[in-house]
Amino acid sequence: MQDDPATRIRLDIAYDGTAFNGWTRQPGMRTVQGEIEAALAVVFRRFPPFPTLVVAGRTDAGVHATGQVAHLDLSPEQLRSLARPRRGKMQGRVYDAPASLGRRINGLAGLESDVYVSRSAIAPDGFDARFSAIWRRYEYRIADNLSPRNPIERRNTVWYPATLDIDLMNQAATSLLGLHDWATFCKPREGATTIRTLQEFRWQRSSDGILVAEVKADAFCHSMVRSLVGSCVAVGQGNLDPERLVGIRDERMRGSEFKVMPAKGLTMVEVGYPEDSGLAARAEQTRARRQAEEASPVLVRPSGSGLPTGPA
Amino acid sequence: MQDDPATRIRLDIAYDGTAFNGWTRQPGMRTVQGEIEAALAVVFRRFPPFPTLVVAGRTDAGVHATGQVAHLDLSPEQLRSLARPRRGKMQGRVYDAPASLGRRINGLAGLESDVYVSRSAIAPDGFDARFSAIWRRYEYRIADNLSPRNPIERRNTVWYPATLDIDLMNQAATSLLGLHDWATFCKPREGATTIRTLQEFRWQRSSDGILVAEVKADAFCHSMVRSLVGSCVAVGQGNLDPERLVGIRDERMRGSEFKVMPAKGLTMVEVGYPEDSGLAARAEQTRARRQAEEASPVLVRPSGSGLPTGPA
Repeated sequence: MQDDPATRIRLDIAYDGTAFNGWTRQPGMRTVQGEIEAALAVVFRRFPPFPTLVVAGRTDAGVHATGQVAHLDLSPEQLRSLARPRRGKMQGRVYDAPASLGRRINGLAGLESDVYVSRSAIAPDGFDARFSAIWRRYEYRIADNLSPRNPIERRNTVWYPATLDIDLMNQAATSLLGLHDWATFCKPREGATTIRTLQEFRWQRSSDGILVAEVKADAFCHSMVRSLVGSCVAVGQGNLDPERLVGIRDERMRGSEFKVMPAKGLTMVEVGYPEDSGLAARAEQTRARRQAEEASPVLVRPSGSGLPTGPA
Repeated sequence: MQDDPATRIRLDIAYDGTAFNGWTRQPGMRTVQGEIEAALAVVFRRFPPFPTLVVAGRTDAGVHATGQVAHLDLSPEQLRSLARPRRGKMQGRVYDAPASLGRRINGLAGLESDVYVSRSAIAPDGFDARFSAIWRRYEYRIADNLSPRNPIERRNTVWYPATLDIDLMNQAATSLLGLHDWATFCKPREGATTIRTLQEFRWQRSSDGILVAEVKADAFCHSMVRSLVGSCVAVGQGNLDPERLVGIRDERMRGSEFKVMPAKGLTMVEVGYPEDSGLAARAEQTRARRQAEEASPVLVRPSGSGLPTGPA
């Protein structure tokens, strides 16, 4: 039994990012990954080594999620340990071991916790939470002077002290769509491409009057959503001509014409994966591209992009 | 000028009740009334006596509001002090003094505050936030096993570990409507009537799957909304026959067939007032009835109710 392969589990996770120092485990900091891995170490305390998480989107401090996805690998021994309830009314009954992992993590976190595993299940063959993903979708919430200001929503809504013109913001958002180099909107990171496909970007007012942006791309570079939102806010307030925006993007230089908006307005809402049969191929393809990027000091051109390459 | 009448200001207020010990000022406790009156004492520090608030609904600890209403009376001197900005770019400009009161309270509370004055304006003649009100509307939010559990909403949504049958809950809610004695659903309070008209009570699932109750009555006695919700939850879980509910209500005795639900799921959303011309008459009528209630050890029968009276 020692040679049985590991079993990969997919976790779907929601969190209120307010009290977290982002997703990624860091010594001495409270992070989402750190909290869930600490719970895993309790669940599997008799079966080391303890599992670690691989995530679809490493959110920044203060960013929330309703549809984050992560995976972990369990040894046969760890998986079997889940299938045996130790006490209580479930003892001796057959039940869904992978689902029980989510319940145990939630139990350890407590009912009023700011992190919640909404689903845990065996992942399909070839699944990788990070490398199989084909798109990520985020929302950004702003209460401007036309919105009601509801203190219960202050943790995930930015209160903006001006009236924003949603038509201009949508004009700006639409102009930006497509496959481009987003260096203007990204905090540079060593060896990471800034070429992405912005698939959706639109603004609407929710039924209670809040301005909500939906933003979807194959992937986002660091601070990209908050910069995109900031550019629309500058346009919506009349401080930036929407027709200037494409030009600013294509200068590929961070400037001062708009601001990076606060983390608290941002929520990761969904991660897209291909059909099960395409998971492994997608992961292999993404992994290969990332390795090429990391090995090269220049940007890697996605096949067929038609974009010039240049220094990161 | 000393003999000018006071000017009554209406405040519309929203709050996240999580960190408040309810509305009503209490020594040594953080309450909504206490916080706003402390801000008023700062705003009018050179013009005592400081105004106090009269509120439409004195919410319990942990209960939220998006549409709470209160009033306060300003002396001519206090009102004039608002009309003179002391410094900054508004200095010397004519602006809306009553509206500036809300801005000053919000400024003192801070942008990330859990209480927010959404409107402040001179009240129409005869307005009394408490006694002119003709109805109050509340919402109650429950995430059952069919709902997503979003940690960002855990402050105003009760996570209920069962699947609730919304059709049964609506059957129960509808059966309760009308003018009745609600003693079964009320924490008794000395000299307060338990006879109220339940005008609306319905359940629906919000677009994100949360069970939301809308409850409207002329007024509510203490813990009434949370008890009404608890009775529907018992029905929705199959622990109470919806056809039993009217019988339980008319026994006018608190029993153990359902629970009072937690405060955190409850939000006061709206207060109804008559047209301006009816404000004074309504306040006079309500005040007279309350005085009669307080003077009498027995329940006062609202005119035309057709209900028996009995000991409170």
